[in-house]
Amino acid sequence: MTSPATVIPARSGLAIHAARGTAIEVVNTHGTQVVDFWALCPPDLSEHLSMEHTRTAIKRLIPRVGDTLVSNLRRPLLTVITDTSPGVHDTLIASCDPERYRQLGVHGQHDNCLDNFDAALADLGLAAPPLPAPLNLFMNVPWTPDGSLRFDPPVSRPGDLVRFRVETDLVVVMSACPQDLTPVNGAAQRPVDVEVRLLS
Amino acid sequence: MTSPATVIPARSGLAIHAARGTAIEVVNTHGTQVVDFWALCPPDLSEHLSMEHTRTAIKRLIPRVGDTLVSNLRRPLLTVITDTSPGVHDTLIASCDPERYRQLGVHGQHDNCLDNFDAALADLGLAAPPLPAPLNLFMNVPWTPDGSLRFDPPVSRPGDLVRFRVETDLVVVMSACPQDLTPVNGAAQRPVDVEVRLLS
Repeated sequence: MTSPATVIPARSGLAIHAARGTAIEVVNTHGTQVVDFWALCPPDLSEHLSMEHTRTAIKRLIPRVGDTLVSNLRRPLLTVITDTSPGVHDTLIASCDPERYRQLGVHGQHDNCLDNFDAALADLGLAAPPLPAPLNLFMNVPWTPDGSLRFDPPVSRPGDLVRFRVETDLVVVMSACPQDLTPVNGAAQRPVDVEVRLLS
Repeated sequence: MTSPATVIPARSGLAIHAARGTAIEVVNTHGTQVVDFWALCPPDLSEHLSMEHTRTAIKRLIPRVGDTLVSNLRRPLLTVITDTSPGVHDTLIASCDPERYRQLGVHGQHDNCLDNFDAALADLGLAAPPLPAPLNLFMNVPWTPDGSLRFDPPVSRPGDLVRFRVETDLVVVMSACPQDLTPVNGAAQRPVDVEVRLLS
């Protein structure tokens, strides 16, 4: 059964409970939007999806269909079962936060993924743990043979989606990244909405 | 002034207080040994050297001379001022822990970097925070254009060293990685001792 799509408005976040055996689908509605994606293990949320443990497990910089993403305790949390995008995602770059925007020259408040993470968990009545490194869906950070990194626009297309099988009960948090000072959300640097579906 | 070298015996860890303005030097005595390296900000240790924030700041997979490593609050913690090795280190792979060895087929106890981190901090009377992703000095994890990763022996030579300027008061923790089931500590898979020097 597929639930109706939930829209995550541009620049904002969403946290949901996802039970073992269900699936979760993140849709890049307009094709240009990065989604910071985290998974936390209830009840205490100190166990979480870990990029460094996942890279160790899959021996790749980017997960692809068939890969199981693991926690900081090396437990399977999610398996990538569908990816209709070109498969360009990111496991290397930190979520944006107020200090990131300050360093990019912003004076005053700017929406950011750290605040979205905290607020989304608060909406579920949960206290946010320290922010784990995110899986940045659709984010395009190419590397060179000498290890240089670049922040490029996504190569995904409108409607591209990634679907995960949920391997253990989770709280999944997502943020439609508010970054509008680098081209990670498209050359137009315009954050937009995305959609999430739960499949039981 | 250079302090006498402190030997970190094979398979074990060390934590030290490092004051702003000093430098710390990690010597790969035998050329084959990976050193998991962390930095924590006293007094509460929740701010720490962050690989994902450092990659964002330096736009490279591996820091090199001149690069400043930053915390999860994007504060400068350490600057690489000397690297006599070929510059092959790792920011991608998680520290080894009991579960890593269990998954590699070990039954029973195996020395590991997580336990070394906890024990080294306990030696200073400090409670260990959740383990941050490490800077794996001298660890050789090459990547391919398609993002595949490999665990190869170090390319460093006996006596190669990395020296960091300490940009703010820190607790620095190091572990001579006990990994002996993959070639990360040399083709012979034999963990050995390293040396640390503080320079004021």
